[in-house]
Amino acid sequence: MPGYAWLSLTTDYGLSDGFVAACHGVVARIAPAVRVIDVSHLVPAGDVARGATVLAQTVGHLPPAVHVAVVDPGVGTARRGVALRTPGGLLVGPDNGLLLRAASVLGGITEAVELTSVEWFPAPSRTFHGRDIFAPAAARFALGAPLADAGPAVDPASLLRLPEPVVREGDGWLEAEVLTVDHFGNVQLAATGSALRRLGPVVRIGGHPAGRGDTFGDAPPGGLVVYPDSADQLAVAVNGGRADELLGVTPGDVLRLE
Amino acid sequence: MPGYAWLSLTTDYGLSDGFVAACHGVVARIAPAVRVIDVSHLVPAGDVARGATVLAQTVGHLPPAVHVAVVDPGVGTARRGVALRTPGGLLVGPDNGLLLRAASVLGGITEAVELTSVEWFPAPSRTFHGRDIFAPAAARFALGAPLADAGPAVDPASLLRLPEPVVREGDGWLEAEVLTVDHFGNVQLAATGSALRRLGPVVRIGGHPAGRGDTFGDAPPGGLVVYPDSADQLAVAVNGGRADELLGVTPGDVLRLE
Amino acid sequence: MPGYAWLSLTTDYGLSDGFVAACHGVVARIAPAVRVIDVSHLVPAGDVARGATVLAQTVGHLPPAVHVAVVDPGVGTARRGVALRTPGGLLVGPDNGLLLRAASVLGGITEAVELTSVEWFPAPSRTFHGRDIFAPAAARFALGAPLADAGPAVDPASLLRLPEPVVREGDGWLEAEVLTVDHFGNVQLAATGSALRRLGPVVRIGGHPAGRGDTFGDAPPGGLVVYPDSADQLAVAVNGGRADELLGVTPGDVLRLE
Repeated sequence: MPGYAWLSLTTDYGLSDGFVAACHGVVARIAPAVRVIDVSHLVPAGDVARGATVLAQTVGHLPPAVHVAVVDPGVGTARRGVALRTPGGLLVGPDNGLLLRAASVLGGITEAVELTSVEWFPAPSRTFHGRDIFAPAAARFALGAPLADAGPAVDPASLLRLPEPVVREGDGWLEAEVLTVDHFGNVQLAATGSALRRLGPVVRIGGHPAGRGDTFGDAPPGGLVVYPDSADQLAVAVNGGRADELLGVTPGDVLRLE
Repeated sequence: MPGYAWLSLTTDYGLSDGFVAACHGVVARIAPAVRVIDVSHLVPAGDVARGATVLAQTVGHLPPAVHVAVVDPGVGTARRGVALRTPGGLLVGPDNGLLLRAASVLGGITEAVELTSVEWFPAPSRTFHGRDIFAPAAARFALGAPLADAGPAVDPASLLRLPEPVVREGDGWLEAEVLTVDHFGNVQLAATGSALRRLGPVVRIGGHPAGRGDTFGDAPPGGLVVYPDSADQLAVAVNGGRADELLGVTPGDVLRLE
Repeated sequence: MPGYAWLSLTTDYGLSDGFVAACHGVVARIAPAVRVIDVSHLVPAGDVARGATVLAQTVGHLPPAVHVAVVDPGVGTARRGVALRTPGGLLVGPDNGLLLRAASVLGGITEAVELTSVEWFPAPSRTFHGRDIFAPAAARFALGAPLADAGPAVDPASLLRLPEPVVREGDGWLEAEVLTVDHFGNVQLAATGSALRRLGPVVRIGGHPAGRGDTFGDAPPGGLVVYPDSADQLAVAVNGGRADELLGVTPGDVLRLE
C-alpha cells in the first residue's frame, strides 16, 4: 500500500524537554526517509480544543501526510488511541476530539482503527503515548502499513467530539465564541469570514468602534478592524497592537458584534 | 536556471500557531526536495530592525539558499513584496528594509523584482503573505524559476532602507546604539569589534567599570566585559549574568563607553 | 570509516537569536546529506546539569547519531572541548560534565579526544564554539572522519563529572533530589521508578497525601500521584495541575516521600 513521504507533529509538549525530539527520533528509526513538519508544540497544556483548531487550520497547507497530534490529558487511562484515514491524509492521536476538525478539512473519515496491537506496541509507558504509540504507529503508516495492522476497526460515529463553539446571528448583530488568540493578539471568532457581509456598515465590538476591512492597515494605528482572516474565519485585530488586550478576551469568551 | 537546495525562514510569527508550519507546508508541496532551516520565528512582533539584524548576522553561516524573511506590519497594504538576487543567495520578503543588511552580507543586490504575478499568486490573503506569496515564490525560485517570472524589475535604489544605527566616536570614547540583546542578556552594539582597539585601557560603561576581553570568563563573576562578539560587533556581557539588566538597556538605547 | 546519517543538537541558545540556525548552517555546508534533530534549545542558560539530563533521557530514542551539546558558561576559557565515542554514537561538546550521563546511556566511552586541530578550527571565535568548533567537528565526524583527526586523545577518567544527585532511602521513606521539572510541572526525582516498590502503601510528599499509580488519571483531579515516569525515574504529578507549584519545588531541592 502506498505510504506518505511526510509526517506532521502537533503537541502540547513544549520545547524545553526532550519529548518532541524523542518522537522525531522514533520516526527516524522506523522510517528514516520520512520528513517531519512541526505544526506547533506550544498548544497550551491539555487544551484539546486549541490543538484541534491549530491542526485543522494548518493541515490544508501541508503536503499529504500522516498527521500526529497529541494533546492528551487522559493519557494512560481508558481513552482510546486511534488512527483515521481521510482522502487527504492520515490522522493519529487520542480519541478525545483533537483530530476530528482536521479530518473534516481533509475530506472526512473513510476508515478508523484503535491502536491496540501488542506487536506494534509491546510495552508502552503509561504517560508518553506520543513516543510509544502514536509516533511509531504513524511511522509505520508512512511506510505503507495498513491501518488494520494496528488494531480493530472503530465506528467513526463512536469517536468523541468536542462541543461546537457558540455562534448566534440576528438582524445586524452576531455573537461568536473566541476560537483562538494568535501570537499577535488577533482574535479569531468561530464565525466564518462571510458573516461580515451580513453585518451593517457600522460595527461595534464590546462597546468599541471597529472598522470593517481586509487587513490590519485598514484601521488607523491603534484602531480595531474586523476582517476575514487567512483561515477564512471572522477575526478582530488592532493595527499595530493586540486586540485580545484591548477587548479583554480569551478563547472561550463570547464576543458581540453589532 | 540552477536553483537552490536550501531555503531559510525568519519571521515574527511565533511558535504557538500553525503559521510557520503552513509556510513549511507550502514549500514542501511546491519543492519537496528543498530543505528548510528556521533562522528564528521569535523576532519581536513587527520589529523590522531586529529581524534585519538576526538575518544579516546568520545568512553568512548558512549554505547558499533562498532566504525568506517576514516581519511585516504593513502586510496587505501598498508596501511591495520583493525578491532580491545577490551573489550569495536570494532574499524574499516585504520591501520594508528587512532584507537589505543581509543583501549586503551576501554581496549586494544584482537583480530585484516585485512579487506581483497573478499566475504565481492567484488569490493571496490580505494578512498572510508569508504563506500565500513569499513562501511559494521562494519555493519556485529554489526550483530554478527566474526572478523575472514573479513580477517586474525594481530599481534597487528604490528599496526602503532602515535608518543607520547611531555610532559616534571621539578621543577615547564611543557612543553606540544597542543593536540587539541576545538570549543570554549580552548587549550587542552597532560599532564593530575593531572599535575596541581605539578605546583606552580603562573602560567604563554607563558608570560601571568594565574589563576588556575576548570572552565572558575574562571578567570576574558578575563583572562586565567588553569584547568583539561572534558576529564581530562590539558587545558587553556580564560573566555569569545579564548585561542588559545590569546596564538597564534595551535595543535602540545608546550606550557610552570611555 | 563509516559515519552517521543523523546529528542532534542540545543547547541553551534559546530560539530568539540566529545561534541555532548558524549551527544548522555549518552542518549543512560541511555535510549536506546529514539530517539534524533538535533535542532542545531551551535548557536554562548555563544549567549544565539540566542539559545533561535532557540529553541523557533523549539519546536512547534517537537514531545512531553525532550528538552535539552546548551548555557552556566557560566557553573560550581553559575548559576543553571534547568528542567522545560510544557504542551507540558520538558526543561532542564542552568538557564540563554535560556529555557523561548520555555517554553512559549509549554504552560508555570507548575513545575520547580534545578538539584542538588548527586545520579543523583555524580561527574560532572565543564566545561561539557551537558554531566554530562543535558543529563543524560533528559534521566532519558524521562524514566519517576519525576522532583522532580533531585532536589528541584524552583519558576518559580525566573528564569533568557533575556531582551525583542526592538519593537517600530508609525503612519506608525516600529522600531524592528533584532532577527536572518538565513543561507540565511534573517533578522528576533522582530515584529510579523501581524505588516505588520499596515505599509503603501510604505515601506522603512534603506533608501532602499522594496516591501511587502509573499515570496522571490514577489520582483524582487536583490530586498528587507518584509514578514511574517515561524515563523510568520516580516522578510526582498532579492530575490536571502542576506538581511543582503544589509542592513548591524546583530542580536541586530534595523531596521526602514516606
